[in-house]
Amino acid sequence: MKKTRLIATAALALSITLPAAAQMSVEDQIKARQGAYQFMAWNMSKIKAQAVDGDIAYNADQMKAAANAIAAVANSGMGALFSPESSLDKADDTRLKPEFFEQPEKAREVGMNFGREANKLQAVAAEGDKAALARQFAAVGKTCKACHDNFRAK
Amino acid sequence: MKKTRLIATAALALSITLPAAAQMSVEDQIKARQGAYQFMAWNMSKIKAQAVDGDIAYNADQMKAAANAIAAVANSGMGALFSPESSLDKADDTRLKPEFFEQPEKAREVGMNFGREANKLQAVAAEGDKAALARQFAAVGKTCKACHDNFRAK
Repeated sequence: MKKTRLIATAALALSITLPAAAQMSVEDQIKARQGAYQFMAWNMSKIKAQAVDGDIAYNADQMKAAANAIAAVANSGMGALFSPESSLDKADDTRLKPEFFEQPEKAREVGMNFGREANKLQAVAAEGDKAALARQFAAVGKTCKACHDNFRAK
Repeated sequence: MKKTRLIATAALALSITLPAAAQMSVEDQIKARQGAYQFMAWNMSKIKAQAVDGDIAYNADQMKAAANAIAAVANSGMGALFSPESSLDKADDTRLKPEFFEQPEKAREVGMNFGREANKLQAVAAEGDKAALARQFAAVGKTCKACHDNFRAK
């Protein structure tokens, strides 16, 4: 019962209900969430290169597509991929700390902050303003870091 | 020159230009594209479970989010992650056949079909009709299979 409540709280943190998790192995949960983060990191790197560092010429359409991808990850219901059996003390190939389940309020806050800022990123990218996108990129990055600092092992 | 043209054609197949690839190692390209496919597969599995198999109760909002995620992958410019050095004869940890670069017209066709059907999936999911979503899921699946059959090793 307690575990179920913790999952539900963590799930809520990422704005989802729990459809698929029950049917997925812990290994598949870990693979799917790492895939999502990998895909998101690639899209973040595109925004960094074009809107922040200027290594690559700014292309508003590519920035829009990248921000859409990041928002799609944020809105995809990833909470379903975090069962308490999937933390690093119980599963392999993950850096997820058990604290994610032990601090459900914090996990909820971190997840909701990420969702809010990622959706704002999508809206800002649609406007096409490079400087505004760079600012919002930083805001999203802060929410990524908050989760890493709290819930991801080094 | 020939290689450049082949990359450009394959890139076009996935409706993108080539910003990031030049700066990414082959290993990073492979990791990013596998992450994207993993994330997409998870979202496809949600649609399968709810709209096709009926294993899980149909939830229109979740279906919309899943289809958005799949379309975001399709529109993310993944062609940038396919350099000719990243096929299985030259790189590790990939099943990408060199045929992907040797048959640029076919690669282009396969990529464009996927993009078109994934975007249609997003539109159909937004309508909320379960049977229509199941039909469009099958159409997307056919385009996935076409790429696997042609360009992915067993």
